[in-house]
Amino acid sequence: MLPRSTEFFSETIAVIGVGLIGGSVAAAARKRALARSVVGVGRNHGRLLAARDAGVIDEAVESIDDLSDAPFVVVCTPVDRIAQDVRRAAEAGPGTLITDAGSVKACICDDIGETLPSGASFVGAHPLAGSEKTGWENSREDLFEDRLCVLTPGVNSTSSEVQRVEDFWQALGMKTRRMTPEAHDRAVAATSHVPHVAAAAVMSLLTEDNSSLAATGFRDVTRIAAGDPQLWTAILEGNRSASIAELDRLIEVLSRFRLALEQGDFQFVRKWLDDARTRRNRIE
Amino acid sequence: MLPRSTEFFSETIAVIGVGLIGGSVAAAARKRALARSVVGVGRNHGRLLAARDAGVIDEAVESIDDLSDAPFVVVCTPVDRIAQDVRRAAEAGPGTLITDAGSVKACICDDIGETLPSGASFVGAHPLAGSEKTGWENSREDLFEDRLCVLTPGVNSTSSEVQRVEDFWQALGMKTRRMTPEAHDRAVAATSHVPHVAAAAVMSLLTEDNSSLAATGFRDVTRIAAGDPQLWTAILEGNRSASIAELDRLIEVLSRFRLALEQGDFQFVRKWLDDARTRRNRIE
Repeated sequence: MLPRSTEFFSETIAVIGVGLIGGSVAAAARKRALARSVVGVGRNHGRLLAARDAGVIDEAVESIDDLSDAPFVVVCTPVDRIAQDVRRAAEAGPGTLITDAGSVKACICDDIGETLPSGASFVGAHPLAGSEKTGWENSREDLFEDRLCVLTPGVNSTSSEVQRVEDFWQALGMKTRRMTPEAHDRAVAATSHVPHVAAAAVMSLLTEDNSSLAATGFRDVTRIAAGDPQLWTAILEGNRSASIAELDRLIEVLSRFRLALEQGDFQFVRKWLDDARTRRNRIE
Repeated sequence: MLPRSTEFFSETIAVIGVGLIGGSVAAAARKRALARSVVGVGRNHGRLLAARDAGVIDEAVESIDDLSDAPFVVVCTPVDRIAQDVRRAAEAGPGTLITDAGSVKACICDDIGETLPSGASFVGAHPLAGSEKTGWENSREDLFEDRLCVLTPGVNSTSSEVQRVEDFWQALGMKTRRMTPEAHDRAVAATSHVPHVAAAAVMSLLTEDNSSLAATGFRDVTRIAAGDPQLWTAILEGNRSASIAELDRLIEVLSRFRLALEQGDFQFVRKWLDDARTRRNRIE
């Protein structure tokens, strides 16, 4: 049996939004020969042509509306633009199968709902890979290798459509897992969105006076706070209620710990740190 | 003029506590030929002999009391044992100059105070280098290179003693900065101790169900939560009031952010994330 990663092929793959993620999708698809042509779609034509010249994409198209013959589309725009871009891609070409790479899923899947023209289909996806960097210049054709991609198929997709989207992400080297959009959003609130908020909050402890004492540990904790504020605002807006719930949990945990410190309950402190270490070692 | 790093030499350097930090101090001192002999002192004789056989130290001594002829001593035991080990080292040899590597300073400097026998002197230090790993097996002779070492001299040390201790840490490749023990402790509460607590608290958001979605960002934020719970309990106990103050600040910042999320004030969210990124980029 051939490995799964050889099973996906599409004459054309269109990538809408050629930034870090879109550029990496395009570069990985080209490297693995998943299409005869990888078409990049972007609003900034100069940057798009530069991405083409750099070999990230094969062709540059300025408008989604010109995508008349793209049977497979990957929407990699910021989360607050994905739903509209999916709709425009569906309207541009009949029979289009569309997936995305958005970090939130429920608001996108709800927004798209049953609004697509018949023949087009959308299967939501979230490839768990990225960086605090932005722009196709930082894209990497191995960005997705051995990482997890969560698929959040809706009731409107056929099982063969879901399978084909799953084949695509696996062909980029990813493991896949299917979840409901809501379960996905709760999970990433805990593993990504609130950790991002925590990292940004820790930055507020830095002053002119103490910053020279910020060493490796501080840099690790706060690395993701360098992420793009506009992207992250859209993510937190898109996953607001789950983020609030996890943020409440974080504040509660910190407040309980603070109480133990104040009361001098170092048995609690020790056990709490022990638990954290055990959990951390489990994911290494 | 010779660079500073060649100005320190001592016939013998004794390192009390040969773990990650002590082992790295010893290995760096040997590599830079700062002494004819680097003596390691540790309670676990088997491990100490292994460190000697591995070339981390030149000689192994089981008890501080046997250190009769060590003119220069570096105490690298956990923070809750440093003060007593400094006293024992001072009693073992007349004319001993002692420094340490503890992450908290006020409680240690206060505890030592004027209790040392005349002729011995202590100049507190905190080399800002480390790892979540432990044990001399993880020690590195380049651990201190280009890092900052904070010195917290007390009123009982002469300026030439302070200078000699400063020369030592600089000879290991470090930059140095002098601070009061209290100012040091406030600074590291913000840049190290509370960030550690935040990382450990973020670990509590991980469940069996969502842990497969923990990606690079989560791993960065929580890396230091794998640190030794016993060491960190002692650090937080030793720097309790400054840690509580910074923890209050962190909880306040998170609560304010939560309110903005709940009120849908995404202008605040955006600006807050923007500020965090600006601060983060400044320390890269």
